[in-house]
Amino acid sequence: MKNQDVLYQFIAMIMMTTLLSSSAFAQNKNLVVRIAKLEIDAAQLESYKSILKEEMETSVRVEPGVLSLYAVSDKANPASITVFEIYANDDAYNAHIQTPHFKRYKSSTMEMVKSLELLNTDPIALEAKKKLQLK
Amino acid sequence: MKNQDVLYQFIAMIMMTTLLSSSAFAQNKNLVVRIAKLEIDAAQLESYKSILKEEMETSVRVEPGVLSLYAVSDKANPASITVFEIYANDDAYNAHIQTPHFKRYKSSTMEMVKSLELLNTDPIALEAKKKLQLK
Repeated sequence: MKNQDVLYQFIAMIMMTTLLSSSAFAQNKNLVVRIAKLEIDAAQLESYKSILKEEMETSVRVEPGVLSLYAVSDKANPASITVFEIYANDDAYNAHIQTPHFKRYKSSTMEMVKSLELLNTDPIALEAKKKLQLK
Repeated sequence: MKNQDVLYQFIAMIMMTTLLSSSAFAQNKNLVVRIAKLEIDAAQLESYKSILKEEMETSVRVEPGVLSLYAVSDKANPASITVFEIYANDDAYNAHIQTPHFKRYKSSTMEMVKSLELLNTDPIALEAKKKLQLK
Protein backbone atom coordinates (compact mmCIF):
# COMPACT_ATOMS: atom_id res chain seq x y z
CA MET A 1 0.00 0.00 0.00
CA LYS A 2 1.31 3.48 -0.87
CA ASN A 3 1.87 6.12 1.81
CA GLN A 4 -0.73 8.25 0.08
CA ASP A 5 -3.29 5.45 0.51
CA VAL A 6 -2.44 5.20 4.20
CA LEU A 7 -2.95 8.95 4.58
CA TYR A 8 -6.32 8.83 2.81
CA GLN A 9 -7.44 5.92 4.97
CA PHE A 10 -6.39 7.89 8.03
CA ILE A 11 -8.41 10.93 6.98
CA ALA A 12 -11.43 8.76 6.10
CA MET A 13 -11.27 7.15 9.54
CA ILE A 14 -11.24 10.55 11.27
CA MET A 15 -14.15 11.81 9.15
CA MET A 16 -16.17 8.69 10.02
CA THR A 17 -15.46 9.15 13.74
CA THR A 18 -16.71 12.74 13.49
CA LEU A 19 -19.91 11.60 11.75
CA LEU A 20 -20.54 8.93 14.39
CA SER A 21 -20.05 11.50 17.14
CA SER A 22 -22.51 13.88 15.48
CA SER A 23 -25.17 11.20 15.37
CA ALA A 24 -24.61 10.54 19.07
CA PHE A 25 -25.28 14.24 19.72
CA ALA A 26 -28.43 14.11 17.62
CA GLN A 27 -29.84 11.59 20.07
CA ASN A 28 -29.15 13.79 23.10
CA LYS A 29 -32.81 14.82 23.33
CA ASN A 30 -33.49 11.34 24.74
CA LEU A 31 -30.87 11.59 27.47
CA VAL A 32 -31.84 10.27 30.88
CA VAL A 33 -30.25 12.31 33.67
CA ARG A 34 -30.72 11.16 37.24
CA ILE A 35 -29.34 12.16 40.62
CA ALA A 36 -28.97 9.51 43.32
CA LYS A 37 -28.49 10.69 46.91
CA LEU A 38 -27.22 8.10 49.35
CA GLU A 39 -26.44 7.96 53.04
CA ILE A 40 -23.82 5.31 53.77
CA ASP A 41 -23.01 3.58 57.06
CA ALA A 42 -19.88 5.54 58.09
CA ALA A 43 -18.16 2.38 59.38
CA GLN A 44 -18.39 0.82 55.90
CA LEU A 45 -17.72 3.95 53.84
CA GLU A 46 -14.34 2.94 52.38
CA SER A 47 -15.65 -0.49 51.32
CA TYR A 48 -18.72 1.13 49.79
CA LYS A 49 -16.68 3.67 47.79
CA SER A 50 -14.40 0.95 46.47
CA ILE A 51 -17.35 -1.17 45.25
CA LEU A 52 -19.08 1.90 43.77
CA LYS A 53 -15.94 2.97 41.86
CA GLU A 54 -15.51 -0.47 40.34
CA GLU A 55 -19.17 -0.65 39.31
CA MET A 56 -19.04 2.84 37.74
CA GLU A 57 -15.83 2.14 35.84
CA THR A 58 -17.22 -1.13 34.46
CA SER A 59 -20.58 0.41 33.48
CA VAL A 60 -19.05 3.29 31.51
CA ARG A 61 -16.48 0.98 29.90
CA VAL A 62 -18.74 -1.89 28.76
CA GLU A 63 -22.21 -0.35 28.33
CA PRO A 64 -22.59 1.81 25.20
CA GLY A 65 -25.53 3.74 26.70
CA VAL A 66 -23.97 4.67 30.05
CA LEU A 67 -22.49 8.05 29.10
CA SER A 68 -21.26 9.31 32.45
CA LEU A 69 -21.39 8.57 36.17
CA TYR A 70 -20.00 11.19 38.56
CA ALA A 71 -19.88 10.31 42.26
CA VAL A 72 -18.95 12.83 44.96
CA SER A 73 -19.11 12.95 48.73
CA ASP A 74 -20.16 15.98 50.76
CA LYS A 75 -17.05 17.57 52.34
CA ALA A 76 -19.11 18.41 55.45
CA ASN A 77 -20.47 14.85 55.71
CA PRO A 78 -18.42 12.31 53.72
CA ALA A 79 -20.98 9.52 54.23
CA SER A 80 -23.46 11.59 52.19
CA ILE A 81 -22.88 10.70 48.54
CA THR A 82 -24.37 12.11 45.34
CA VAL A 83 -24.16 10.34 41.97
CA PHE A 84 -24.91 12.36 38.84
CA GLU A 85 -25.85 9.86 36.09
CA ILE A 86 -26.27 10.36 32.33
CA TYR A 87 -27.68 7.59 30.11
CA ALA A 88 -28.25 7.75 26.33
CA ASN A 89 -31.97 6.93 26.68
CA ASP A 90 -34.52 4.89 28.68
CA ASP A 91 -33.44 1.60 27.09
CA ALA A 92 -29.84 2.23 28.16
CA TYR A 93 -30.93 2.84 31.73
CA ASN A 94 -33.19 -0.22 31.81
CA ALA A 95 -30.40 -2.39 30.37
CA HIS A 96 -27.93 -0.98 32.93
CA ILE A 97 -29.92 -2.12 35.97
CA GLN A 98 -30.10 -5.65 34.54
CA THR A 99 -26.33 -6.07 34.11
CA PRO A 100 -24.37 -8.53 36.29
CA HIS A 101 -22.04 -5.76 37.55
CA PHE A 102 -24.95 -3.55 38.63
CA LYS A 103 -26.73 -6.45 40.35
CA ARG A 104 -23.48 -7.42 42.10
CA TYR A 105 -23.06 -3.78 43.27
CA LYS A 106 -26.65 -3.73 44.61
CA SER A 107 -26.38 -6.99 46.52
CA SER A 108 -22.90 -6.35 47.95
CA THR A 109 -23.76 -2.83 49.20
CA MET A 110 -27.29 -3.58 50.45
CA GLU A 111 -26.18 -3.54 54.11
CA MET A 112 -24.05 -0.39 53.63
CA VAL A 113 -26.72 1.97 52.26
CA LYS A 114 -28.81 3.59 55.01
CA SER A 115 -31.00 5.57 52.59
CA LEU A 116 -31.34 6.16 48.86
CA GLU A 117 -33.25 8.95 47.13
CA LEU A 118 -33.57 9.01 43.33
CA LEU A 119 -34.28 12.27 41.53
CA ASN A 120 -35.48 12.10 37.92
CA THR A 121 -34.56 15.28 36.10
CA ASP A 122 -34.96 17.24 32.88
CA PRO A 123 -31.65 18.60 31.57
CA ILE A 124 -31.60 22.40 31.21
CA ALA A 125 -28.08 22.50 29.75
CA LEU A 126 -25.08 20.13 29.80
CA GLU A 127 -21.99 22.18 28.99
CA ALA A 128 -18.53 20.61 28.95
CA LYS A 129 -15.15 21.29 27.34
CA LYS A 130 -15.74 18.20 25.24
CA LYS A 131 -19.32 17.19 24.52
CA LEU A 132 -20.35 13.73 25.65
CA GLN A 133 -19.56 11.25 22.93
CA LEU A 134 -20.07 7.54 22.52
CA LYS A 135 -16.71 5.74 22.78
CA MET B 1 6.56 17.94 0.82
CA LYS B 2 6.29 14.19 0.34
CA ASN B 3 3.15 12.29 1.25
CA GLN B 4 5.19 10.34 3.74
CA ASP B 5 6.15 13.60 5.49
CA VAL B 6 2.49 14.63 5.65
CA LEU B 7 1.63 11.28 7.23
CA TYR B 8 4.41 11.60 9.82
CA GLN B 9 3.31 15.17 10.67
CA PHE B 10 -0.23 13.88 11.08
CA ILE B 11 0.87 11.13 13.47
CA ALA B 12 3.11 13.56 15.41
CA MET B 13 0.16 15.95 15.81
CA ILE B 14 -2.04 13.16 17.19
CA MET B 15 0.68 12.01 19.61
CA MET B 16 1.13 15.59 20.84
CA THR B 17 -2.63 15.99 21.40
CA THR B 18 -2.58 12.78 23.45
CA LEU B 19 0.31 14.04 25.56
CA LEU B 20 -1.41 17.37 26.20
CA SER B 21 -4.57 15.54 27.25
CA SER B 22 -2.58 13.37 29.65
CA SER B 23 -1.10 16.40 31.34
CA ALA B 24 -4.62 17.81 31.77
CA PHE B 25 -5.59 14.55 33.47
CA ALA B 26 -2.54 14.73 35.70
CA GLN B 27 -3.97 17.92 37.18
CA ASN B 28 -7.31 16.27 37.97
CA LYS B 29 -6.37 15.82 41.63
CA ASN B 30 -6.99 19.56 42.06
CA LEU B 31 -10.49 19.46 40.58
CA VAL B 32 -13.14 21.49 42.37
CA VAL B 33 -16.54 19.79 42.19
CA ARG B 34 -19.56 21.61 43.61
CA ILE B 35 -23.28 21.08 43.62
CA ALA B 36 -25.58 24.12 43.70
CA LYS B 37 -29.22 23.55 44.64
CA LEU B 38 -31.61 26.36 43.80
CA GLU B 39 -35.29 27.05 44.27
CA ILE B 40 -36.56 29.46 41.61
CA ASP B 41 -39.69 31.63 41.64
CA ALA B 42 -42.01 29.53 39.43
CA ALA B 43 -43.41 32.63 37.71
CA GLN B 44 -39.91 33.54 36.48
CA LEU B 45 -38.63 30.03 35.75
CA GLU B 46 -38.36 30.33 31.96
CA SER B 47 -36.47 33.64 32.19
CA TYR B 48 -34.16 32.16 34.83
CA LYS B 49 -33.36 29.07 32.73
CA SER B 50 -32.60 31.19 29.69
CA ILE B 51 -30.16 33.42 31.64
CA LEU B 52 -28.56 30.37 33.30
CA LYS B 53 -28.04 28.59 29.96
CA GLU B 54 -26.35 31.61 28.44
CA GLU B 55 -24.06 32.05 31.46
CA MET B 56 -23.10 28.35 31.44
CA GLU B 57 -22.40 28.29 27.72
CA THR B 58 -20.21 31.40 27.96
CA SER B 59 -18.31 30.15 31.01
CA VAL B 60 -17.39 26.79 29.47
CA ARG B 61 -16.50 28.43 26.14
CA VAL B 62 -14.30 31.30 27.34
CA GLU B 63 -12.86 30.15 30.69
CA PRO B 64 -10.11 27.51 30.39
CA GLY B 65 -10.69 26.28 33.95
CA VAL B 66 -14.47 25.80 33.79
CA LEU B 67 -14.55 22.14 32.71
CA SER B 68 -18.25 21.37 32.91
CA LEU B 69 -21.54 22.78 34.13
CA TYR B 70 -24.56 20.48 34.12
CA ALA B 71 -27.92 22.00 35.08
CA VAL B 72 -31.07 19.92 35.55
CA SER B 73 -34.53 20.50 36.97
CA ASP B 74 -36.42 18.05 39.15
CA LYS B 75 -39.18 16.39 37.08
CA ALA B 76 -41.43 16.38 40.17
CA ASN B 77 -40.73 20.08 40.87
CA PRO B 78 -39.32 21.94 37.85
CA ALA B 79 -38.53 25.07 39.89
CA SER B 80 -36.03 23.00 41.89
CA ILE B 81 -32.73 23.14 39.99
CA THR B 82 -29.41 21.38 40.56
CA VAL B 83 -26.15 22.46 38.93
CA PHE B 84 -23.23 20.01 38.96
CA GLU B 85 -20.04 22.07 38.47
CA ILE B 86 -16.47 20.96 37.72
CA TYR B 87 -13.56 23.43 37.78
CA ALA B 88 -9.89 22.66 37.08
CA ASN B 89 -8.78 24.00 40.50
CA ASP B 90 -9.47 26.66 43.15
CA ASP B 91 -7.96 29.45 41.03
CA ALA B 92 -10.30 28.57 38.16
CA TYR B 93 -13.30 28.76 40.47
CA ASN B 94 -12.18 32.05 42.04
CA ALA B 95 -11.59 33.54 38.58
CA HIS B 96 -15.01 32.33 37.39
CA ILE B 97 -16.97 34.24 40.03
CA GLN B 98 -15.13 37.45 39.09
CA THR B 99 -16.03 37.30 35.37
CA PRO B 100 -18.45 39.86 33.85
CA HIS B 101 -20.77 37.08 32.60
CA PHE B 102 -21.02 35.47 36.06
CA LYS B 103 -21.61 38.85 37.74
CA ARG B 104 -24.27 39.69 35.14
CA TYR B 105 -25.97 36.31 35.80
CA LYS B 106 -25.93 36.94 39.57
CA SER B 107 -27.38 40.44 39.37
CA SER B 108 -30.02 39.64 36.75
CA THR B 109 -31.33 36.56 38.59
CA MET B 110 -31.15 37.95 42.14
CA GLU B 111 -34.93 38.45 42.32
CA MET B 112 -35.65 35.03 40.76
CA VAL B 113 -33.72 32.80 43.20
CA LYS B 114 -35.73 31.99 46.33
CA SER B 115 -32.97 29.88 47.92
CA LEU B 116 -29.46 28.68 47.12
CA GLU B 117 -27.53 25.88 48.81
CA LEU B 118 -23.91 25.18 47.86
CA LEU B 119 -22.41 21.77 48.52
CA ASN B 120 -18.61 21.44 48.42
CA THR B 121 -17.64 17.90 47.53
CA ASP B 122 -14.77 15.46 47.19
CA PRO B 123 -14.89 13.46 43.94
CA ILE B 124 -15.05 9.68 44.45
CA ALA B 125 -14.96 8.88 40.72
CA LEU B 126 -15.78 10.81 37.54
CA GLU B 127 -16.37 8.28 34.78
CA ALA B 128 -17.38 9.36 31.27
CA LYS B 129 -17.17 7.99 27.75
CA LYS B 130 -14.61 10.67 27.04
CA LYS B 131 -12.54 11.93 29.94
CA LEU B 132 -12.75 15.64 30.67
CA GLN B 133 -10.16 17.45 28.62
CA LEU B 134 -9.10 21.03 28.33
CA LYS B 135 -10.28 22.43 24.99
